[in-house]
Amino acid sequence: MPDLPGLPRPLPESRAIDPFIVMDVMGEANAREAAGEDIIHMEVGQPATPARRAARERARTALERERLGYTEALGMPALRERIALYMRERYGVAVGPERVVVTAGSSAGFVLAFLAVFEPGAGLGLPSPGYPCYRQIVKALGLSPRLIETSAEGRWMPTAADVDRLAAANAAGLLLASPNNPTGTMALGGRLGELAAACRRQGLWLISDEIYHGLEYDAPADTALNHSDAAIVVNSFSKYFSMTGWRIGWLVVPEALVRPIERLAQNLYISPPAISQVAALGAFDGLEELEAIKAGYARNRTMLLEELPRAGLDAILPADGAFYLYADVSRFTDDSEAFAKTMLRESGVAVTPGIDFDSARGRRYVRFCYSGAEDAMREAARRIGAWLKPK
Amino acid sequence: MPDLPGLPRPLPESRAIDPFIVMDVMGEANAREAAGEDIIHMEVGQPATPARRAARERARTALERERLGYTEALGMPALRERIALYMRERYGVAVGPERVVVTAGSSAGFVLAFLAVFEPGAGLGLPSPGYPCYRQIVKALGLSPRLIETSAEGRWMPTAADVDRLAAANAAGLLLASPNNPTGTMALGGRLGELAAACRRQGLWLISDEIYHGLEYDAPADTALNHSDAAIVVNSFSKYFSMTGWRIGWLVVPEALVRPIERLAQNLYISPPAISQVAALGAFDGLEELEAIKAGYARNRTMLLEELPRAGLDAILPADGAFYLYADVSRFTDDSEAFAKTMLRESGVAVTPGIDFDSARGRRYVRFCYSGAEDAMREAARRIGAWLKPK
Repeated sequence: MPDLPGLPRPLPESRAIDPFIVMDVMGEANAREAAGEDIIHMEVGQPATPARRAARERARTALERERLGYTEALGMPALRERIALYMRERYGVAVGPERVVVTAGSSAGFVLAFLAVFEPGAGLGLPSPGYPCYRQIVKALGLSPRLIETSAEGRWMPTAADVDRLAAANAAGLLLASPNNPTGTMALGGRLGELAAACRRQGLWLISDEIYHGLEYDAPADTALNHSDAAIVVNSFSKYFSMTGWRIGWLVVPEALVRPIERLAQNLYISPPAISQVAALGAFDGLEELEAIKAGYARNRTMLLEELPRAGLDAILPADGAFYLYADVSRFTDDSEAFAKTMLRESGVAVTPGIDFDSARGRRYVRFCYSGAEDAMREAARRIGAWLKPK
Repeated sequence: MPDLPGLPRPLPESRAIDPFIVMDVMGEANAREAAGEDIIHMEVGQPATPARRAARERARTALERERLGYTEALGMPALRERIALYMRERYGVAVGPERVVVTAGSSAGFVLAFLAVFEPGAGLGLPSPGYPCYRQIVKALGLSPRLIETSAEGRWMPTAADVDRLAAANAAGLLLASPNNPTGTMALGGRLGELAAACRRQGLWLISDEIYHGLEYDAPADTALNHSDAAIVVNSFSKYFSMTGWRIGWLVVPEALVRPIERLAQNLYISPPAISQVAALGAFDGLEELEAIKAGYARNRTMLLEELPRAGLDAILPADGAFYLYADVSRFTDDSEAFAKTMLRESGVAVTPGIDFDSARGRRYVRFCYSGAEDAMREAARRIGAWLKPK
């Protein structure tokens, strides 16, 4: 990187990570909205709904009655216990509260997990396409991303053979996201167990991103903890619990990792936001509301899987979970970034170019997030159809 | 580090950072409190007061009316503008809002600043005694802490000669905290300008931790921005604005750093907590309340500087700012950690052993935080006096 004017020394090249493109798209979409344009947001992966009523009620009470100072670095004991109970309720897995680490969103969960278990330079297997921040965090922290090219035919999931190849190439872990972002596909039919067994056999860390759990439309997602005691589970209140901006999530880690992670959390974060922890305690009281929101996502998914193909976007794998569709747009473009920009400008629909998730093949894909209101999603499909119609 | 049972591979030695001891002390103090003991907290550096009324009102309104989703990674535009205005009001320094980065507390500010400007392995000068997380974050991120031993005679501040020595040893930056934690001392009498000039001359980054600004008892603290356009300023709503648990702070950075830091923030944090940003917007409306709180700290300081010497703790430098006193306890012990533990157990007063701030000489010091209620601070002095009285 060049020596920039007025700086005492050049900026470090090794840290020059890519932007999280979806955040840039959101910035532009917001600016257009602020300027009076009518924008439909399908770019950022976040619910259109606020946190559940019970969560907001708890936060309101805390605002009146509590100091809201630092909490324990690993999180409020009551919240750690409630999360452990939730793990038992949802998956039937027995996890003591001492293995639960409350984090400032899954973002902090990844940083803490990566720093706790990987030496500088260690290789981490990252299925591609995948959540872009994985590889950027890995790079920013001085680790080495080892991309695993998955395919639509394989439902965008890695295999046990990929784990063997990682081990042969001296990698130290595999990151698995099921449901996956941007494809919404899942490790089904025993795949999760196969991957856990392969990691155990090869001595690799298995980091399981379960942030989209709760949002499945057919088979329920299982936790990696039902297949490996050594798995590190990353989860969050952002998606299913509809609390993105609260920046609150959790890890479940092997007992031997709790203290190393606590030391890192104390120093790098001090504690997760107190009011978000209080709100999260209330989030578990609104599960029926969450199921109603999910039913809306399911309707959006069904509608889009009908309407987008009519608009010419017929190469979309039906997602198993999350609220994304990853559409092959190679009929229209080999530059998804330009395609998304033009779509935003000409139709007012914001989507994310695939290059955010897969820097090579992503030029032929865009991701639609269908977590918006049903009317807005239907209008988006209409606009896209009109925009793509041969002129 | 040993191979722990049940883990796929050993944990990385290079990441084995120290705990942030004050968080461990707080954990034990909280546990004793929960068990019914009457504990006075002088360990954690946080106000006893909640956020100002106007801040809480804004948060309450947002809870009712807003979705509280992700914000822009650099923070809400309105908050960046308000912070820029505050910089002008407080210091008379002209900073455009585009140079303000809202962060999840100063903790995130340090991580972002360090990653943005330092190559892996780069050396950063850290005055010692100092805030322990500096050296732990530096170590966790694969940088190299270069401790600068300061002295009570030099009011615990580094000098321009220290900067020259850093440069000779190939370090890449200096971190300056004024007021300093744990000593409360400041870079006065032209020292800040000298340090800024030395950094400029030697081509070193100057990272100025201004988190205790607003809490000065004599001369007001000046910002490094009045002495260097290239300085990176770290600040927070935690201390003066009494919002520790909200995890909200800010950076002011040279324009050329904004985009590199935005990329890191997008990927490592996504955005600071939305509700905390909303609350912070309201925090500026309560400055007279903040001045009243500060007047209470000043009374606590005066009282402790009278009472602690009577109790036998007569080697304390009067602090210029913050809410700390750093006391030489070598008359009583050469193991400040055991001393603090016994004090907590026998007198119910929690303080932080100096080893958190200075792993060698800190064995002879403890830090008192006097941000608590006046009655509690007076009672603490009484208990300590009774406990230290020759038996």
